[in-house]
Amino acid sequence: MLATVLHGPGDVRFEQVADPRIEKPTDAIIQLSATCICGSDLWPYRGLQPQTGPLHMGHEYCGVVVEVGSEVRTIKPGQFVVGSFCISDNTCPHCDFGFQSSCAQGEFMRGAQAPYARVPLADGTLVATQEMPSHELIPHMLAVSDVLGTGWYAGDAANVRPGGTVVVVGDGAVGLMGVLAASQMGAERIIAMSRHASRQALAREFGATDLVAERGDEGITRIMELTHGVGADSVLECVGMEESMQQAMGACRPGGTIGYVGVPHGVTFDGQKLFFSQRRMLGGPAPVRRFLPDLMDRVLKGSIHPGKVFDLQLPIAEVAEGYKAMDERRAIKTLLRV
Amino acid sequence: MLATVLHGPGDVRFEQVADPRIEKPTDAIIQLSATCICGSDLWPYRGLQPQTGPLHMGHEYCGVVVEVGSEVRTIKPGQFVVGSFCISDNTCPHCDFGFQSSCAQGEFMRGAQAPYARVPLADGTLVATQEMPSHELIPHMLAVSDVLGTGWYAGDAANVRPGGTVVVVGDGAVGLMGVLAASQMGAERIIAMSRHASRQALAREFGATDLVAERGDEGITRIMELTHGVGADSVLECVGMEESMQQAMGACRPGGTIGYVGVPHGVTFDGQKLFFSQRRMLGGPAPVRRFLPDLMDRVLKGSIHPGKVFDLQLPIAEVAEGYKAMDERRAIKTLLRV
Repeated sequence: MLATVLHGPGDVRFEQVADPRIEKPTDAIIQLSATCICGSDLWPYRGLQPQTGPLHMGHEYCGVVVEVGSEVRTIKPGQFVVGSFCISDNTCPHCDFGFQSSCAQGEFMRGAQAPYARVPLADGTLVATQEMPSHELIPHMLAVSDVLGTGWYAGDAANVRPGGTVVVVGDGAVGLMGVLAASQMGAERIIAMSRHASRQALAREFGATDLVAERGDEGITRIMELTHGVGADSVLECVGMEESMQQAMGACRPGGTIGYVGVPHGVTFDGQKLFFSQRRMLGGPAPVRRFLPDLMDRVLKGSIHPGKVFDLQLPIAEVAEGYKAMDERRAIKTLLRV
Repeated sequence: MLATVLHGPGDVRFEQVADPRIEKPTDAIIQLSATCICGSDLWPYRGLQPQTGPLHMGHEYCGVVVEVGSEVRTIKPGQFVVGSFCISDNTCPHCDFGFQSSCAQGEFMRGAQAPYARVPLADGTLVATQEMPSHELIPHMLAVSDVLGTGWYAGDAANVRPGGTVVVVGDGAVGLMGVLAASQMGAERIIAMSRHASRQALAREFGATDLVAERGDEGITRIMELTHGVGADSVLECVGMEESMQQAMGACRPGGTIGYVGVPHGVTFDGQKLFFSQRRMLGGPAPVRRFLPDLMDRVLKGSIHPGKVFDLQLPIAEVAEGYKAMDERRAIKTLLRV
């Protein structure tokens, strides 16, 4: 089949690769209904992450099961499924504790920017729907796999509570999903830090009550004005840079919580500073599997429309243009039709 | 009056100072029933904290109110009171949120290793009992002021839950109080990391179910053996050194929580490592005021005996020997009779 391979910085190709096949008896093969490009795919695309050989890209997926290994018990061919970008057995103690992204057998999904993909640990990783979702629901279902699941985890990790005040740092796709999550979790006030008109509009649509375009100390000053000098109960850090983390720290109240889901690059914390500022913190790769049934249900009921985050749709053969558009920030997130 | 003054590293004197007096209309003056030496007093005593002039030592206290300022409304002369080492108005948004140690008007108590002391913001800081507690209860009431309150906060910050598995790093007075707190909070398993026989015995008495004498990688290996390779749900870090923090990180499970109450000295966190290890963290000076009514109640009912942590009692005139005994680890914690 033809699939997406990154050969080096800026060099994305849609080229012939071996068809995926059952390698372990716990695998499933799915035919993708759609796939997409993640902000984290841009790290190697931009050469900011060491790369030793060609990378089979893609870890966000939904589709129809076409084959399962001999030990797969609950997932069946013909089912529509969504899976997490974190593969998990969903039975180990870490999974039981709700942290499937730290599964004892865990690995990261790959090779999903393709018409077919192999999903390891299918029973633990995939969640099937009762019926085949309509075509219109596919982008929303796809978003659950990572970008919404990650934004949701940012809200969960940041202890978003009904009536709470929330700041979202980062207006990328994950940040926008963080806004949606905070809104669904009942936050009263959701302050999105964004300076781009199109992203501001989407943030509003997803539930942002306030927008702050300023950054750095000015941004923190503005947050403090908006919160009467108190700071936010919950801050969702959806970038992963030193500057954005400082922003999150400064926007948070003492005893408040920072949920950080942007993979930190060059971020360090001074223990004593963290101590006296009294911020609660939890971050990590999102345990999307924990949230999948609930989030898929919300999509099926039509109560959320996370697929609106895709502002560019391309045939998968044009995947290289999809990367380029996101790299140049012309697109928030690219859906690839397969 | 005679009171405790630190003139420089190792130079503690019990000497003539001005009597405390009402300086602000929100102050109270108390006559101490007893006072004590804190592990944190050893930082300047050991010259590990910059000191520019003589320090009036002591921040743990309980006693009888002898005078109040003109704006004090709820605290009255004659009442027996316990206060937090963190002064707070208990009305600002941070106090309302349960983080009185980050009070907008906050300051740290000082000068309490003395027969009398001035307590600022008396209404917000002090909690009075209905009746005068018996002489036997004084050490337990005194412990609430900081050492128990801080150990309790470590447990609270570490999300200790009924049935949970807890590791306590540090067998100083705060660590031992952390064991007591975890036990009161219903933890099923409490693993105390301690290598000193007398402290191990006290840890057992306070509710430790397991003891680990090993440190470093060996200590972590032992914790992993005891928890079937999973790690602890909650870790109470009660030291504040790089080594102890590493211990806490290594003992914690993914998605577990570290409550750290030892002021970090030379501790830094790498953002990406913290992210992928998925530890929740909260630390800071303990908001003891939040816990005071409950903890005083437990002492008055006789359900806890935190004062057992005082293994040395001296007349306050011998305060220098009290510091020395703690510095040389001959004593866990010294109570000073006034």
